[in-house]
Amino acid sequence: MTALPVIGVDVGGTKMAAGIVGADGLLVDYVLHPTPTESQLKFLAGLEAAVEGLAARGPVAAIGFGVPSRVDQVAHRVVGSVHVPLAGVDLAGHMSERFGVPASVDNDGNSAAVAEWKLGAGRGTNHMVMLTLGTGIGAGLILGGRPYRGALGGGAELGHMVIDVDGPPCGGSCTGHGHFETLASGSAASARARELGFPDAHALVAAARNGDARAVEALAGIGRVLGAGLVTIVNVFEPEVIVIGGGFSDAGELVLGPAREVVAAEALQPGRDFVRIVRAELGPEAGMIGAALIALEALGDAA
Amino acid sequence: MTALPVIGVDVGGTKMAAGIVGADGLLVDYVLHPTPTESQLKFLAGLEAAVEGLAARGPVAAIGFGVPSRVDQVAHRVVGSVHVPLAGVDLAGHMSERFGVPASVDNDGNSAAVAEWKLGAGRGTNHMVMLTLGTGIGAGLILGGRPYRGALGGGAELGHMVIDVDGPPCGGSCTGHGHFETLASGSAASARARELGFPDAHALVAAARNGDARAVEALAGIGRVLGAGLVTIVNVFEPEVIVIGGGFSDAGELVLGPAREVVAAEALQPGRDFVRIVRAELGPEAGMIGAALIALEALGDAA
Repeated sequence: MTALPVIGVDVGGTKMAAGIVGADGLLVDYVLHPTPTESQLKFLAGLEAAVEGLAARGPVAAIGFGVPSRVDQVAHRVVGSVHVPLAGVDLAGHMSERFGVPASVDNDGNSAAVAEWKLGAGRGTNHMVMLTLGTGIGAGLILGGRPYRGALGGGAELGHMVIDVDGPPCGGSCTGHGHFETLASGSAASARARELGFPDAHALVAAARNGDARAVEALAGIGRVLGAGLVTIVNVFEPEVIVIGGGFSDAGELVLGPAREVVAAEALQPGRDFVRIVRAELGPEAGMIGAALIALEALGDAA
Repeated sequence: MTALPVIGVDVGGTKMAAGIVGADGLLVDYVLHPTPTESQLKFLAGLEAAVEGLAARGPVAAIGFGVPSRVDQVAHRVVGSVHVPLAGVDLAGHMSERFGVPASVDNDGNSAAVAEWKLGAGRGTNHMVMLTLGTGIGAGLILGGRPYRGALGGGAELGHMVIDVDGPPCGGSCTGHGHFETLASGSAASARARELGFPDAHALVAAARNGDARAVEALAGIGRVLGAGLVTIVNVFEPEVIVIGGGFSDAGELVLGPAREVVAAEALQPGRDFVRIVRAELGPEAGMIGAALIALEALGDAA
């Protein structure tokens, strides 16, 4: 164990949040930087600058990065990313060399899940699924008391479950069709909002809160599709808790209510009666905290 | 450890296979009995008689049952079943008392998966998904080097993944819609066969083998839906191997070929390039062998 703090960085498509996290997992301070997306070179330079600013304040034990990417932990390589120009790089190795301390890299969905599991809405559970509803749907799995990342580390991509076999293309770096995140994310809500003449999902949620029946029904429709994905999650993982985070989770029961109804009506027993479906507790800081916790855990494994 | 053999029983909707399995997992001998489905009482009496016949041959260390059921391993209770009248019973407790040796009960999909993992097509892997294509789609998960059954033991029901959010009802004891097994099982193939004027899936496969273009295309269509489910499996579990067993897997590459093509085109990297999709090796004996191996493992845990 170490008493030194750890730097945790949560990399998003528009901004990077870099924080100093105590060995107890508490966030001490953090800074936000815009994410350079012109090129991988500029992206990496921006990421280094963000870490540099915190590293200059004093010694740290390690640095953890949560990235919107599939990470091959066996080959030590970021395979591909969404929304950021990062592919084919040993990011952990690069940053470890650059800053002279151990560095870890994990998917941002996994990072948020670890944070909610250790310190948030999943505390004390051994079987937890987290979904982060945003532009896409990020995800993380805690199975049998430990994070599950697949054989190589690129798994747990529950946003890319097929829930409509004849559905629309997923887009970006994903060549699939009918994926969960295409149909139940904040982007899906924004697309539906625009069909109804609202600028985006935020406006749709605001209108629903003000009693606009079309907006309420539109969000309920997204909620029912979310519920179909939760049915798969309950039937496959039979988790104790499903934690729902991300910006679009701010729609709250407007979306989660209909999703819960689908689970109650359609998932298998005993899982459907057992599972709790709850909002995340840590908010947008979960990504930073989780990245730091994973870096800490890697230190422990190495020791 | 024990040198005594173990009885493994694989319970299906029409027949029960009960075998004597050595401590090395090899099947010594087995018997087939019809499954009584008139009532739970007759079902249990038939199951006892099947075990009795083998137990009379000599001492055994334990008895393992693989059942087409969701099992709550925490409450020691079979929650519900498909095709057999078994619900609300502590089957392991009942059989252990009846025969005076430890007994274990697990889902038949889990049992087959454990057998293929220990002795069949999944040997030597740590991340394996098994699908059993029959009347439904049974499934079992080996994640991080151990079987994964969910928090209560009723998980791993991959046949009940939602792959068509607006799809048809699942039926039986499942109140869901658009589930994988409704659209890609042997029953799905038989339904498609009848639409084309064939009596069932067997006849459809035979016709395809004889070059009937409509039959080939019908099976390819089922294969592509199977492939969509495999995309979910690759994206979520990133397994080393997906093992495909069950009677409908005899259609071989007529179904698996198109499924592989969908995975290659639509699943995420690195998992899609890494995963092997292979036929099961143990055949219909996998259920018995797996049930026995699980009983053996339970003995080890208790020792």
